[in-house]
Amino acid sequence: MTDPISDTGLAARLRRPATPQYRDDQAGLGGAEPIAVYAPRDAAETAAVLRACRAEGQKLVVQGGRTGLAGGARVLPGEAVLSLERCTFAPEIDPVAATLLVGAGVTLEAAQAAARDAGLFLAADLGARGSAQIGGLIATNAGGPLALRYGTFRQQVLGLEAVLPDGRVIRRLSGLSKDNSGYDLSQLLIGSEGTLGVITRACLRLHPQPRGRRVALCALARLDDALPLLQRLRRELGPLLAACELIVEPLLSAACAARGLRHPLPGSAALVLIETAGMSPEADDAQLEDTLGALLAEAIATDAVLSQSERESATLWGLREGCSHYLFEIGPITSLDLSLPIPAIPRFVAEGAALLAQIAPDTRAHAFGHLGDGNLHYVLTGHQPEPVLRAVFALTAGMGGAITAEHGIGLDKVAFLPLCRPPDEIAAMRAIKAALDPDTLLNPGRILG
Amino acid sequence: MTDPISDTGLAARLRRPATPQYRDDQAGLGGAEPIAVYAPRDAAETAAVLRACRAEGQKLVVQGGRTGLAGGARVLPGEAVLSLERCTFAPEIDPVAATLLVGAGVTLEAAQAAARDAGLFLAADLGARGSAQIGGLIATNAGGPLALRYGTFRQQVLGLEAVLPDGRVIRRLSGLSKDNSGYDLSQLLIGSEGTLGVITRACLRLHPQPRGRRVALCALARLDDALPLLQRLRRELGPLLAACELIVEPLLSAACAARGLRHPLPGSAALVLIETAGMSPEADDAQLEDTLGALLAEAIATDAVLSQSERESATLWGLREGCSHYLFEIGPITSLDLSLPIPAIPRFVAEGAALLAQIAPDTRAHAFGHLGDGNLHYVLTGHQPEPVLRAVFALTAGMGGAITAEHGIGLDKVAFLPLCRPPDEIAAMRAIKAALDPDTLLNPGRILG
Ligand SMILES: Cc1cc2nc3c(=O)[nH]c(=O)nc-3n(C[C@H](O)[C@H](O)[C@H](O)COP(=O)(O)OP(=O)(O)OC[C@H]3O[C@@H](n4cnc5c(N)ncnc54)[C@H](O)[C@@H]3O)c2cc1C
Ligand SMILES: Cc1cc2nc3c(=O)[nH]c(=O)nc-3n(C[C@H](O)[C@H](O)[C@H](O)COP(=O)(O)OP(=O)(O)OC[C@H]3O[C@@H](n4cnc5c(N)ncnc54)[C@H](O)[C@@H]3O)c2cc1C
Repeated sequence: MTDPISDTGLAARLRRPATPQYRDDQAGLGGAEPIAVYAPRDAAETAAVLRACRAEGQKLVVQGGRTGLAGGARVLPGEAVLSLERCTFAPEIDPVAATLLVGAGVTLEAAQAAARDAGLFLAADLGARGSAQIGGLIATNAGGPLALRYGTFRQQVLGLEAVLPDGRVIRRLSGLSKDNSGYDLSQLLIGSEGTLGVITRACLRLHPQPRGRRVALCALARLDDALPLLQRLRRELGPLLAACELIVEPLLSAACAARGLRHPLPGSAALVLIETAGMSPEADDAQLEDTLGALLAEAIATDAVLSQSERESATLWGLREGCSHYLFEIGPITSLDLSLPIPAIPRFVAEGAALLAQIAPDTRAHAFGHLGDGNLHYVLTGHQPEPVLRAVFALTAGMGGAITAEHGIGLDKVAFLPLCRPPDEIAAMRAIKAALDPDTLLNPGRILG
Repeated sequence: MTDPISDTGLAARLRRPATPQYRDDQAGLGGAEPIAVYAPRDAAETAAVLRACRAEGQKLVVQGGRTGLAGGARVLPGEAVLSLERCTFAPEIDPVAATLLVGAGVTLEAAQAAARDAGLFLAADLGARGSAQIGGLIATNAGGPLALRYGTFRQQVLGLEAVLPDGRVIRRLSGLSKDNSGYDLSQLLIGSEGTLGVITRACLRLHPQPRGRRVALCALARLDDALPLLQRLRRELGPLLAACELIVEPLLSAACAARGLRHPLPGSAALVLIETAGMSPEADDAQLEDTLGALLAEAIATDAVLSQSERESATLWGLREGCSHYLFEIGPITSLDLSLPIPAIPRFVAEGAALLAQIAPDTRAHAFGHLGDGNLHYVLTGHQPEPVLRAVFALTAGMGGAITAEHGIGLDKVAFLPLCRPPDEIAAMRAIKAALDPDTLLNPGRILG
């Protein structure tokens, strides 16, 4: 394979060896060897690559940290890679505006550290923080446990610099929190998974560092009780509520047994982990204690444990994270990232089990995730065939849910998108894609197939 | 003038008499008599109107409550009106998900009341609440004093139902707070001022009702001190900080003098009004008192008054609102709604005065607004001619600001958009407009001219 733009001079300067790690993201289905790998340093170099590739009809796949879970960054045969790894414009903090200006290729961890060093807080976190890049996180509108309180990446973005497929550059980097001067193209690019433009820099919103946190674990007699529980937590705790995670049993019991850990609240139908974090630790703690007391008195929760120290908080979170680790250890699994209207979650768990009993009787389903966001990690044992996935996604969509809450469509969920998006809406998406990328130069086949 | 779609049957059913109020919005420059006024009740009827008008080449202007301040809803000669006044699908609250499903034609006030009746809070407010409609507020991404803490309308929208110019309907109404299944078309429509589609319903996010509020007014020796003041407030108060409004003197002095009110903190360069609201009134009050004490001790503020009752809170807010009223009473004014990087605000006030002294020496400028959002109401005495506006907007844009923070471009600021948006970005906006509305059927001439 030869590099079609190698004789532009540009290619020589920006080219990187096409080593194997460029082939795929963490979905791990295995990608092709790219025609070439380009790593521009800024918007101007990115625009030059796009113009040169456009002239040659060379398709490109955009890559950040390749931690994505939907195959969006996987190389298809004949594609060249456009990697943001050198687009690492160092984080610049404005302490008065509470903003962070940063290159798309900077890792989440490095951006978090820059904010922390300035006494501020980048309110986004996830397990892949050491490799996932700001550009990739924005392109996938990533979430994570902080999203309940602070929103997903969409809410962190004040504006973007991005190169459109034709080499045009859009740039909103001055950190305005209000700007109604025309369409907000930054918002359109967020979550577009590299299909509409290449993000090269971002201006992000920073928050004050919360003071102290407190964690509680509640036991529920019935999964249905999660709904009034959440409603009460929201009403009593307001912005103090920093996380509200659900674990449907027997998942925690199995995870504890597998690792020889004592289950703190055995015999329940489900557990809810609550974290509070505010500005007045003592008053905030009292507020949480009062709320838990009321939940127990009204038998919405049957039992609860409350952390008394930062170490105990970490232990309770460890139980939640242990569920993910346990599932990765039990053998092959199929992990779905569903979004559901919150009131539908108990019904989904029941109907999902009934559905699987019918169509895949050897399969077990485990459910846990971000209750407060309606984001359910639905994990099926075994590598599930297409018809099973389709049936589960159809159940989700039938309840008003979406087939992906966080991870995106990428290449791997393209066939299922019509289950949750009507033809009119997909047609409108296609019209926008065609308007900005008429030659389907960028990330062909992702999202829209 | 005749109704070009009158013989479709549809027109007869949906037509309203073209009484004078349909001609213009609150910008008040005077619009044309519309060819016809159609008031569909839902998305299906809206789609039917759009299809019929498309077939006849009949251009439409979309109207909500006509409280807009940019001329977006003003009728141009030859246009028909598409009014959402009958699209009043009554508010439906989901108390568990904390969401509000509502028709685009419902007023903000009615939506606020529905949330309140359910013990929840629609975190958006503005003076035009009794007439402004949910659809218009979303189409203009309206802000207001609550935006500092809760964001503008963009952050309140979980999803929209909207009819695109070709009659296609998009619909995301199940209240998902995370959904990465393809492009977020709702986000593209927010702030697009009716140029890309007609919003017919919305699902909005609700918040818990905060408990109690406390208001303080601080005096500053120099306008520059507003910057460290805001930085400290953010850091110490975090999510308790519910408003942070700036008044640059001599505006408050003049407003108090004109109404015979006592100025509580005379002799300062600027004033900052602070409101806190949280879940633990006593602890929150203590937090505010401590913070004010530190600001005074460090001479960031020279003096401060703190409300001791709800009545005193209202009095302090009355001083802030009195500034707006005063300005409307002093004779003809030109009121600009600028967005600036927060650190640039003091410099803008100084350079703006210097600029006016040069180009319009008889003009006085008053500055006040939402400090925490960088949103400056910049009010010039007299009806200002185009060159003066252009010079002030150019100064704004040169500092990284935007020519409209809240009110939008509409018809009245089209000529100035290129000052703050580069040609590449305007070209991308045009491409999106052409993709969704190839015949320029909806709101022609708005935003993009
Ligand atoms: C251990 C682990 C934990 C995770 N936890 C979470 C979680 O809690 N929540 C969550 O939402 N996700 C989670 N993820 C997945 C998440 O999508 C990615 O971590 C992250 O958002 C992708 O960033 P990246 O830089 O690795 O992008 P990549 O994987 O390289 O790319 C992802 C997509 O974005 C595009 N893209 C990348 N960079 C750019 C750019 N600069 N401009 C335009 N398009 C671009 C790519 O083409 C691709 O379509 C997790 C992943 C792992 C491995
Ligand atoms: C007293 C007063 C105070 C105000 N205070 C504020 C404030 O604090 N903050 C602020 O941001 N604004 C403020 N505004 C202006 C603000 O833009 C409007 O109040 C509101 O957002 C417009 O809503 P509306 O229903 O009246 O829309 P209209 O004026 O009817 O229309 C506004 C624009 O939106 C379009 N539009 C309307 N409805 C729809 C729909 N359903 N679908 C698609 N497009 C539609 C129109 O075509 C037009 O371009 C104020 C106005 C007044 C008069």
